[in-house]
Amino acid sequence: MSFFTLDNEAFAGFVRYATLVVCKTMAMSLVTSYFRVKTSSLSSPEDARVVAPNDKEKQKELLRPNDDVERARRAHLNDLENVVPFVLLGLLYLSTGPDASTALWHFKIFFWSRVWHSIAFIGAFPQPSRGVGFVLGFLVSASMAVRTLCALS
Amino acid sequence: MSFFTLDNEAFAGFVRYATLVVCKTMAMSLVTSYFRVKTSSLSSPEDARVVAPNDKEKQKELLRPNDDVERARRAHLNDLENVVPFVLLGLLYLSTGPDASTALWHFKIFFWSRVWHSIAFIGAFPQPSRGVGFVLGFLVSASMAVRTLCALS
Amino acid sequence: MSFFTLDNEAFAGFVRYATLVVCKTMAMSLVTSYFRVKTSSLSSPEDARVVAPNDKEKQKELLRPNDDVERARRAHLNDLENVVPFVLLGLLYLSTGPDASTALWHFKIFFWSRVWHSIAFIGAFPQPSRGVGFVLGFLVSASMAVRTLCALS
Repeated sequence: MSFFTLDNEAFAGFVRYATLVVCKTMAMSLVTSYFRVKTSSLSSPEDARVVAPNDKEKQKELLRPNDDVERARRAHLNDLENVVPFVLLGLLYLSTGPDASTALWHFKIFFWSRVWHSIAFIGAFPQPSRGVGFVLGFLVSASMAVRTLCALS
Repeated sequence: MSFFTLDNEAFAGFVRYATLVVCKTMAMSLVTSYFRVKTSSLSSPEDARVVAPNDKEKQKELLRPNDDVERARRAHLNDLENVVPFVLLGLLYLSTGPDASTALWHFKIFFWSRVWHSIAFIGAFPQPSRGVGFVLGFLVSASMAVRTLCALS
Repeated sequence: MSFFTLDNEAFAGFVRYATLVVCKTMAMSLVTSYFRVKTSSLSSPEDARVVAPNDKEKQKELLRPNDDVERARRAHLNDLENVVPFVLLGLLYLSTGPDASTALWHFKIFFWSRVWHSIAFIGAFPQPSRGVGFVLGFLVSASMAVRTLCALS
């Protein structure tokens, strides 16, 4: 019997939250682009040459890292390091046929903890704001992994 | 009823294009390695110590970032930021039982837009070549996410 | 017929090894944090301002990259570049209904090659220790991709 159908309440909830949290991750690309445009901070020498074709000094300046851009990039990378494992572990966890209500709590807590993490990161809130979001999400993924391994043995 | 079987034309197409686009992503490791060897540009101090055991100056030089290597690494990271979400969103989207022909168009456009993106990135083509590949792929993923969320509600 | 059920020996093995290898990837976050604390090396200016509120010099020092932290971060990124494609390709490969014993060998070899890769990376073992782990894992993923594409045509 396959658990990967929308009749399965746990899976349907997963599809919703996993889609939302992956969209949130992809939105970090837009945030980075926004800061790159706002602060005129580029990543590639070939782009700088298009913007300032004959001005080596200006090109160097365009490529200088900017704090806001770097912060958005770190937030994006942190999402890749945490959201992608969550989705993969979530799929594996669902294959063990978990209780729907327990599973849904995992997905909801993870989603909101990552929304909070992004807000705290981009807003440069003082720690431990960002840390709380990270740890909560990490614990959710760890809990799903432990439950999966226990269900197998 | 499970949609995740090869009898399902949409899923069979996904398996083909998702496999190909993940392979393209992994190929970026080889491109990076190729440029590292070609330009003698290493990433780890411990590797530099093996190549030039007693020459501190040479070690520093080996660790200096190289434009081509950095470009390949950015292309690889951009793939991780876009290809992985595509595969995850694609799996979630397929669970909603989409029309096969619509789904296949999504997968094909995404695959070719990322192939183009990599060529434009590694070749350092002037913008907006690379941007077009990025935006097209991004829109495909966004479209799948929207369709998934609409199907759920 | 769905292959994504725990009755399928190949899938059950995948759930085990994929969960373990994703956990190993997430553990790299903890290794990075450990080295950040041990060497007082931070990543964000806003964190440095909390640790040393009125000391610009100290803040700069806290943000200086540290070799051990950078090594852990490279190991983490390398995991993202290899473990995530493995899990995605593994799921796609399983949809083709592979022979259980062949599939399990793939998963086991991949898992141990990545464990070895992380040990060699964090321990800064001289090459080719780390390279062997990387290549082995890469070949496993490539083999699964080729088998998937052959099964489709």
